[in-house]
This record gives sequence, structure tokens and C-alpha cells, in this order.
Amino acid sequence: MSAHPRLSLNQATIRHASLDEALEVTAAGGYESIGLWREPVQAVGLGEAARRFADSGLRLSTYCRGGFFTMPEGPARRASIDDNRRGIAETATLAAAGAPGSASVYVLVAGGIPEGSTDLIGARARVAEALAELAPDARAAGVTLAIEPLHPMYASDRAVVSTLGQALDLAAPFDPSVVGVTLDTFHIWWDPEVLSQIARAGAEGRIATYQVCDWRTPLPADVLLGRHYPGDGVIDFATLTAAVEAAGYAGDIEVEIFNQEVWDAPFADVVARTAEAFESAVAPHLAASVII
Amino acid sequence: MSAHPRLSLNQATIRHASLDEALEVTAAGGYESIGLWREPVQAVGLGEAARRFADSGLRLSTYCRGGFFTMPEGPARRASIDDNRRGIAETATLAAAGAPGSASVYVLVAGGIPEGSTDLIGARARVAEALAELAPDARAAGVTLAIEPLHPMYASDRAVVSTLGQALDLAAPFDPSVVGVTLDTFHIWWDPEVLSQIARAGAEGRIATYQVCDWRTPLPADVLLGRHYPGDGVIDFATLTAAVEAAGYAGDIEVEIFNQEVWDAPFADVVARTAEAFESAVAPHLAASVII
Repeated sequence: MSAHPRLSLNQATIRHASLDEALEVTAAGGYESIGLWREPVQAVGLGEAARRFADSGLRLSTYCRGGFFTMPEGPARRASIDDNRRGIAETATLAAAGAPGSASVYVLVAGGIPEGSTDLIGARARVAEALAELAPDARAAGVTLAIEPLHPMYASDRAVVSTLGQALDLAAPFDPSVVGVTLDTFHIWWDPEVLSQIARAGAEGRIATYQVCDWRTPLPADVLLGRHYPGDGVIDFATLTAAVEAAGYAGDIEVEIFNQEVWDAPFADVVARTAEAFESAVAPHLAASVII
Repeated sequence: MSAHPRLSLNQATIRHASLDEALEVTAAGGYESIGLWREPVQAVGLGEAARRFADSGLRLSTYCRGGFFTMPEGPARRASIDDNRRGIAETATLAAAGAPGSASVYVLVAGGIPEGSTDLIGARARVAEALAELAPDARAAGVTLAIEPLHPMYASDRAVVSTLGQALDLAAPFDPSVVGVTLDTFHIWWDPEVLSQIARAGAEGRIATYQVCDWRTPLPADVLLGRHYPGDGVIDFATLTAAVEAAGYAGDIEVEIFNQEVWDAPFADVVARTAEAFESAVAPHLAASVII
């Protein structure tokens, strides 16, 4: 089997797979690249995970995920910053172990408004402070921190960074190799500014990763799980993908789906279905020549 | 009983009340103002509704709601435009029947992406076209069309207008007395641009109504019903209300809550609880002197 050379499977799409299972099924599906998550890596230990990942022959597209640093100063914030430092180090180790062309990109979800607070503006200020604190570590490790704007329906409990423009403003004080942004169609498709902000992200050299999945209503009871295969919903992948291409992004493209039905399906079926969906909904809008 | 002089009950907060019940319980609760919905008005007929409304002694704060005009040209679109023309006429009749200070404001929800389409940009263009078509009717009737940006989680199926900035851009070609915007905290609180866009809305004279309710997670299974009493969630009413005040809005402020538990409670209890919530979460941030 072979899959599109720029397609990467984000491991969350097969959430219940172990690291070994994920690597095996992804490689067997003809993919060249994978986006790894921390929990399955930590389950086997970083050193062992890096060895197994190297053996897989796959590239790393991203490492998911850190962040969650909107709490005020105190032990919980220190624990979060320390954990993010470990995540940066893990990213560097895994990117080094991956096949040539691996991206040393650590995806960051900001975190929500702290429990009991209504201080959204304060929570956002603490994201900026956390980036300033982590940027030297990322620079030293050769890791790009990829701030991910999440859909505004997660603004209260998951990410106070809600638009691409806001993510780019947060990234602005830093070198683009140190702080970039994650473009995930599910989170940004609705934004009236999305095309101009994608162009801006490209011009500023900050597109660290491009992730695709679809939006469909009604949303499920758990709104985290309302993500679908590209082409199964309302997102205009032609327009968004062309914009990301025009902005100069030439790296791997992850399919990342949180969806209970997808999680309940056999891993190999999901891997195959993902490649098909990518081929029909996304690939036609990519430049013919692939630059890794 | 008396309630804050700028407080208005949006009728959707007591969704299952008839027009008579709504008018009675709102007046009995000491409110001076109400935001009416079309269905209960149409249930008794416009003329009779206007007489009963005049007898209530209440002001009209808004008439809800029209819009839903994102479909391509054809019979369905013609029916929508015609229905909106009737809604404009109804607004004028009810505002004239209301107590002095009534607002002749017709709230517009844009509508979603047409079934089977992924053409978000086209759907938005049809909102602009519909406004152009309806603006002469609104002007002639002395009605302000109040475009309501809805939370982006409704962008696919309910409103392709997702931000206040976008709503103001859509309103820009028209006189502010003809096309304005609806500010609803539930829909706009998360927006990184919200404060600057509220200021802009004020400077452009386009704040047609200010509606308040709170956001709380987790969302209910039907995400339309995730609205709460002000103060029961994460929205910073102090900052938003101060911004709306500073922008020069001095009209009635509606509490509009879609929530199954609220709908299941006795109307009088909801009216009283709404007044209390408004008094504690919103009123302290209003200027002391009331200008109607």
C-alpha cells in the first residue's frame, strides 16, 4: 500500500492504539509520517519509544501536545511549565529519531479560563508569559512551539487562544523557528479572517503544521468528538488547502480526528479510510511536486 | 415589584409562554420592557398582538427574529425575503404600539451553509445581498435590521456571520439607522477582538441591542440550549458591559436564555430570577443615570 507522500496520521485518530500498534499500522498503510502523542510514548518510556520510532522508518510531523498554562503563578503553574520543558525535550528526541524530513514541532493548546474565574484577558496574558518562559528551551532544543488556536466553543475550558490572528499575535515576539502556529481546519474554518490570516502566517514564516478534519452538525454530546474524515462535512478543503499551499507550507499534513466511531473501528480500517479521504478531499489541492 | 429600568425580558427566556402570559408575567415582575418573538405574536395575529402589547404598558426592546437567507436564488430564497419583509412590518407595528422608548429593531440571524454545500463564502455573500434587498423596506418602515453574529459553533447550520467585526463589515454599506448589529454576550465573549469591535460598533452608531446571558461548560447535548443566567458562567460582564456603555449604548438590555431547565420552570420564577441575576451581574456596570 502507499499513501500520499505528504499525508501523516495524527495518532489521536487511532486513540486506543499503543505506540507499537500505531507505528505498525501507519507504516503498513503506506504512510511516511506520523504525529505522535505523549501518553503512548511515555507508556514505553522516551528512550525505548525513540528506538521503536526510528525502526518504523516514519517521519515525525508533530508531537502532541503541551500547553495548558493559563493558571496563575503557583505550584500548578510551575508543574505545567516543567512538564512543557519535558515535552520540548521529548519532541527533540523523537524528531531526531525519525526519518529525514521529520519536523521538530511541539503542539501547544493554551488551556482554558481557570476554574471559578471570569478573567479571560488575564488567562491570555499568562499564555504569553508561558511562551516567553519556554522559548529559550525550545530554541536550545531546536524545537518549534506551535500554538494551536482552538475553536471558540473551547474558549472557556480548553483554549483561550481562539483565532489564528490571535495565535500569530502571541507568536510575534519570537523567532518563527521557535514559536509558530498550528493550522487545524476544524478550529479555523469558520473564521471570516481565515484566508488573510493564513497568508499572514505564511508571510511571517510561522506555519508549523497543517492538520485536517471536517466539521459536521449536529455536534455529538461531547463536543470534543465532533471531528470527521475530510469530505464528510462542510469544510471547504479546496479553498483552505490552496491558501496554505500559497502561503508556502510544504510539510506533512496530518489528519487528526477525535470521534468515538472512528476510535471504535479497527486501526487498519481507519488508516485506510483516512488515506482515501485525504486523497479525495485534500490531495487534489496540493501542488504536484512534493518538497519535504 | 420593580426591576432595573433598562432590563428587558427576551421572550425566548420563557419560551413556552403565550403572548398574554409573557406580557403579564413581565409587567408583574416590574419590568418596563420586553423583546417579543414572532411565533407568539403570529399565534394571536398582528393586530390583536399590537393591542394587547399596547395594553401591557411595556416597551419593545427587539422583535425576534428574521434572517435565514443564505440559500441561493430560487423560490425558497424569495419566500425568505418575503417573510423578512413581513417581519419588518410587524416590527414597526409592535414598536408603535409599545410604550414610549420602544425600539424598532428586528434581529436577523443569517442562516447556515445550505444543505450539501461547502460554500461558506458564497453563503456570506448572499447575506450581503439580502441586506441590500431588505434595506429599503426597513428604511421605509423606520426599522433597524440588527445583524446578530452567532457563536462560531453555529457557523455551519445557523449563522455564517460569526464575529462582530464581520457583522459590522456587512452593515457598513448602509445607514446605521437601517442596518445595525446585535451584541449578545453568549456569542461574542470569546472573541479576542471583542472590545475593539464594540468600540467600533459604538463609533459607527450601530449597536441596535445588547443581550446578556452566560456561557458555561460542559455544553448540553443540544448546544443551542447552553445559555445561563448572567453570573452563572465564565463571561466577564463587567468588562463587556462597561465597553458597551462606553460605546454609547443607552437602550434596554435583554436577558435571553435558551435553556431547558429555565424553560421548564414557572414563568414568574424565571422572571424574578432573571431580574436578580441582572441586578447582580450586569446592573453594577451600568451608568447610574438612565437615558431611554
